[in-house]
Amino acid sequence: MKIVVDIYGADNSPGALVEGCVRAQKGMPALELVMTGNEVEIRSEIKKYGGDASRIEIVDAPEVVTNDESPTMAIRQKKNSSLVRALEILKTRDDVGGMLSSGSTGAVLSGAIFKVGRLDGVLRPALAPLLPTANGSNVCLVDCGANVDCRPEFLVQFALMGVSYMRTMYGIENPRVGLVSVGVEDHKGNELTKEVFTRLKALPINFVGNMEARYALTGDYDVLVADGFVGNTLLKSTEGTASMVMKLLKDAILSSTSAKIGALFMKSAFKKLKHDMDYNTLGGAPFLGIEKVIVKGHGSSNAVAVEAAIKQVAKMAEGNLPANILQELKKLEAAGANA
Amino acid sequence: MKIVVDIYGADNSPGALVEGCVRAQKGMPALELVMTGNEVEIRSEIKKYGGDASRIEIVDAPEVVTNDESPTMAIRQKKNSSLVRALEILKTRDDVGGMLSSGSTGAVLSGAIFKVGRLDGVLRPALAPLLPTANGSNVCLVDCGANVDCRPEFLVQFALMGVSYMRTMYGIENPRVGLVSVGVEDHKGNELTKEVFTRLKALPINFVGNMEARYALTGDYDVLVADGFVGNTLLKSTEGTASMVMKLLKDAILSSTSAKIGALFMKSAFKKLKHDMDYNTLGGAPFLGIEKVIVKGHGSSNAVAVEAAIKQVAKMAEGNLPANILQELKKLEAAGANA
Repeated sequence: MKIVVDIYGADNSPGALVEGCVRAQKGMPALELVMTGNEVEIRSEIKKYGGDASRIEIVDAPEVVTNDESPTMAIRQKKNSSLVRALEILKTRDDVGGMLSSGSTGAVLSGAIFKVGRLDGVLRPALAPLLPTANGSNVCLVDCGANVDCRPEFLVQFALMGVSYMRTMYGIENPRVGLVSVGVEDHKGNELTKEVFTRLKALPINFVGNMEARYALTGDYDVLVADGFVGNTLLKSTEGTASMVMKLLKDAILSSTSAKIGALFMKSAFKKLKHDMDYNTLGGAPFLGIEKVIVKGHGSSNAVAVEAAIKQVAKMAEGNLPANILQELKKLEAAGANA
Repeated sequence: MKIVVDIYGADNSPGALVEGCVRAQKGMPALELVMTGNEVEIRSEIKKYGGDASRIEIVDAPEVVTNDESPTMAIRQKKNSSLVRALEILKTRDDVGGMLSSGSTGAVLSGAIFKVGRLDGVLRPALAPLLPTANGSNVCLVDCGANVDCRPEFLVQFALMGVSYMRTMYGIENPRVGLVSVGVEDHKGNELTKEVFTRLKALPINFVGNMEARYALTGDYDVLVADGFVGNTLLKSTEGTASMVMKLLKDAILSSTSAKIGALFMKSAFKKLKHDMDYNTLGGAPFLGIEKVIVKGHGSSNAVAVEAAIKQVAKMAEGNLPANILQELKKLEAAGANA
């Protein structure tokens, strides 16, 4: 199984991308990589980080898709960009099972849909990052921004795709699904979520019910379903709040000599805290509902994040996630809920 | 100026409510209170906490509206409840300028609309709690759950009401307004926020533009505008994440002896951190757009939170917030934006 990695378009391209690939190589002796981007630069980076060049194929693609341009235009026009070449390789080559890009989110999503294609029956592919929880488990949030205007049937599919993802990745047989809402009671919600609630209730999945965003990170759920606007708000406010608390903590430490001394004793504890909250170790956000496995890495990914994301792509591809999603979506026909 | 306080319906009723009132009395020599609820119990609590009974009028109302019942039914049927009596007093008495209730949110909101009434021209009153930020300032989030299905014109009014609130409460002449969206770029958003963006741009207010939830608590905004579903998600995920980080920090401390020692030195720093993040000191959530001042306190309010909320009600009432909101809404007619 080969994985294609778009080496450009990220904040730390090409260095962190190639370094992350080399790290992944070391832990995975069977890993074969295809890298797209500036061949000369990539070759030099592989050497720099001591990568095994015999397991890396480089496809020269000098253009770069940036965050500043129109995603659809970029996909159409920059045919020789690292992203478009990676998408084409993923689409056309049977030996390539998955792809990682840490470039422009919009371009990766449009490219995935237009160049690779949706799985049969999928209405809207969705971005589904993992979030760390208070009990050490991870929860998958679908959708976190690919679809900002949703119909009920989209969210129902998000739930099934999330279930399939968590089962494939973590072997959780019946992932606990929560619907992001304004209260836990069955009748709480807006027009969209009330309809989704009824439909999810009718499906043979482990639907726990409505969930308040307050409980998103308790570890009581495996999959959280939301329209992309709400999911994005939830995800980003989680990140923003964690940063704010850490800043306030730092301020509090710096404001007192006694606290500064205390902080020295707590160095390892702070390190643990930072690690527990580190999104980098969780990989990237899979784009569920595409014919092949695609993961969107953080634009600011470091080598550790890239390594984690490559492992994630490999696991999704080896577990045959697209086929599992197709299988899971059949529950809709059976339930007649997606008429 | 008198303030009516619904003493029942909260988790810590009647004790924390009366204690909070007494604390507020002590700092505000001119404060006159009307309390609604079980007269005998209230009288005994006032004595217990050393309140000045000469400045407290008690209106006996033995019924209690709970969180478990239908808000509209409760408002209609429990005529002798502490909440309904408080609302009637607020509506009918000119000497009463504001009200605090920490009971059922749904019942307080329905009651405010049906018993007290919307300000002329207000389409949807909105809940607007303050959140603490990383730089010590506060940001007002409108709406955080009163309206889960919104039209663009609702959010435009939320912005103006938020502006009026922050000006009245903190003397900020031109509050910085952000629209909660999925990115900071002008074109980002869903159908609703894109339309709201255009309308806010056309108004003579300090509209900064789209804001990602990641930056909600940086202190760069005074007013955040969102539909109630999104605002609720933002608010609650903020609370949930802060709790999770504190729990992970605690776990990290308990996992090492050195960290435990360090934590002793950091006691005051942790105390400061807890204080900086404490919602209790920020009062409750005002319900903006009602003919008179109404604040909804947290259901789990302690005496400190009640005291803060009473001060907040007093400031809003003395600053004549309802009249200011009416004034601010005139900008809509001038701009022709609310056709």
